[in-house]
Amino acid sequence: MFDFNYLNIVEAYKNIKNKVIKTPLISSEFINNLVGGKIYFKLENLQNTGSFKLRGASNKISKLTLDNKANGLVAYSSGNHAQAVAFASLQENISAKIIMPKNAPKIKIDNTQRYGAEVILYDPKTQIREEIGQDIAVTENRTLIKPYDDFDIIAGQGTAGYEIAEELNHLSIIPDIYLCCCGGGGLIAGTSTYLKYKFPKIESYAVEPYGFDDTKLSLENKKIISNKPSFESICDAIITPQPGNITFPLNLKALAGGIVVKDEEVKSTIKILAEHLKIIVEPGGAVAATAALTKKIDMKNKTVVVMISGGNIDLEMFANL
Amino acid sequence: MFDFNYLNIVEAYKNIKNKVIKTPLISSEFINNLVGGKIYFKLENLQNTGSFKLRGASNKISKLTLDNKANGLVAYSSGNHAQAVAFASLQENISAKIIMPKNAPKIKIDNTQRYGAEVILYDPKTQIREEIGQDIAVTENRTLIKPYDDFDIIAGQGTAGYEIAEELNHLSIIPDIYLCCCGGGGLIAGTSTYLKYKFPKIESYAVEPYGFDDTKLSLENKKIISNKPSFESICDAIITPQPGNITFPLNLKALAGGIVVKDEEVKSTIKILAEHLKIIVEPGGAVAATAALTKKIDMKNKTVVVMISGGNIDLEMFANL
Repeated sequence: MFDFNYLNIVEAYKNIKNKVIKTPLISSEFINNLVGGKIYFKLENLQNTGSFKLRGASNKISKLTLDNKANGLVAYSSGNHAQAVAFASLQENISAKIIMPKNAPKIKIDNTQRYGAEVILYDPKTQIREEIGQDIAVTENRTLIKPYDDFDIIAGQGTAGYEIAEELNHLSIIPDIYLCCCGGGGLIAGTSTYLKYKFPKIESYAVEPYGFDDTKLSLENKKIISNKPSFESICDAIITPQPGNITFPLNLKALAGGIVVKDEEVKSTIKILAEHLKIIVEPGGAVAATAALTKKIDMKNKTVVVMISGGNIDLEMFANL
Repeated sequence: MFDFNYLNIVEAYKNIKNKVIKTPLISSEFINNLVGGKIYFKLENLQNTGSFKLRGASNKISKLTLDNKANGLVAYSSGNHAQAVAFASLQENISAKIIMPKNAPKIKIDNTQRYGAEVILYDPKTQIREEIGQDIAVTENRTLIKPYDDFDIIAGQGTAGYEIAEELNHLSIIPDIYLCCCGGGGLIAGTSTYLKYKFPKIESYAVEPYGFDDTKLSLENKKIISNKPSFESICDAIITPQPGNITFPLNLKALAGGIVVKDEEVKSTIKILAEHLKIIVEPGGAVAATAALTKKIDMKNKTVVVMISGGNIDLEMFANL
């Protein structure tokens, strides 16, 4: 296997640092008092396109040949990877076709189109997005930009961890715990790999919605296990069926375990983050904060880094909360 | 007159840098495309207590004697200064009484009490807050912490400008324009003084709500002019009757002019900032962004710094927008 390590993330950061926002790492005394520890929130919801996904997409695209770029891209995504690929393609005048579930949040479909991509909607109950993507890639000679199971994507997402480490170093802070959402596992694989290199004693946890704890189960069993079907969750961005073939071995190496949160807890967290951090977070982007605010783990006097991965929530849904 | 200048702000930053959050300076490609210039938003809504006011309050309190601190503080405020004084007092175990209008946003009253201050509500139609404050200060021997007309407060608020300049310097960027909300004028006096020192060609503008453009009128007439009564605005944080006696001469020296925005424009801006910056901004904190998004000034190919001064909006009102 390709020996993926922190150097891949350092290289990715060089590739993309002028293409992404260096997002802030913020704490709130109110929330620190609530949990009894010191939390630093990494605000990837403030990233261009509203999520961390721009990092991976930008890194992948930076490695394509001119021929690849001329032939265009294709990607499948529940929405955040879609917007990221569309936005990054627009910056370089590359044609992009994006396959999205027809029940994706409206804000995600609208923005993907606004960034100039052609959106192809599919029915997730009857169609398989990987097949549609593969088909378009072959017939139209487009490069498929996978959402997570790709070393360049993982290295790109890992640059959020690079920024976290730089900022903590600057503040002379050594974190004890890292909490990060986990869908396919690209973000947590990249960031936890880098954070473990910089802070060898850090304990990193994958946080997943109830019914979609495939990474937790897989970590416990040391092999890839799928979710049982029939569950639902408001955390649209991270309800993947099973860990990635590339992301899982990296996560098995870097993570201390998994944590599960419920939709109702996520909703409360979104409200607390709005009231006390003044930020808008989407459900999938709020699960790590949920694990912290519901004290699923002992944070007493600990320093905890919490990933806020995205903010693409329909404002109507947000208002209803 | 006391010669207030950038050195007072440098000194204030030394006093408070460990007591406040170094808030981020963020841009959004989507918004840049919308206005045709490059905007950097200074996110003081992410400051502890949800607004920049913690800077001034912390600086003022850092200069009090032990006796002053033992006798306690009193302050009057529509809400953000209230929370800041309460929070800063709590950090140092100082007793605080805060005089607030009974129609202040609930979130501001609740948080002020949550930070341990005693809140005294008054009726702004029949009572004068300055008189109540003066009375308590004298009879209880408490130190009055004014909201803006005080050099230590102005220097404290100016530290937001210090951080902006540091970050722009780091990015090798020279800003052309600075847009900042203006109520009593403390924030804009402090920040524009520092920015003008660092970037002598910068043009700074005070942005005010329709009907409350006392600073704009006063700048045009080179003397303090009050607003006509009977106007109303949703921008509760900045509907002061006239410029401060101390802030106005500083603003007359540092500012290029004033800009007026309407409540309806502010509402649209709050929505755009939620959708594209993923942040929650209160009406008074959004007026500078409103001036930018409604293109009240030519920003074509310009670099513009926009102050987002606070985020303490009742979530119900936010949801209704």
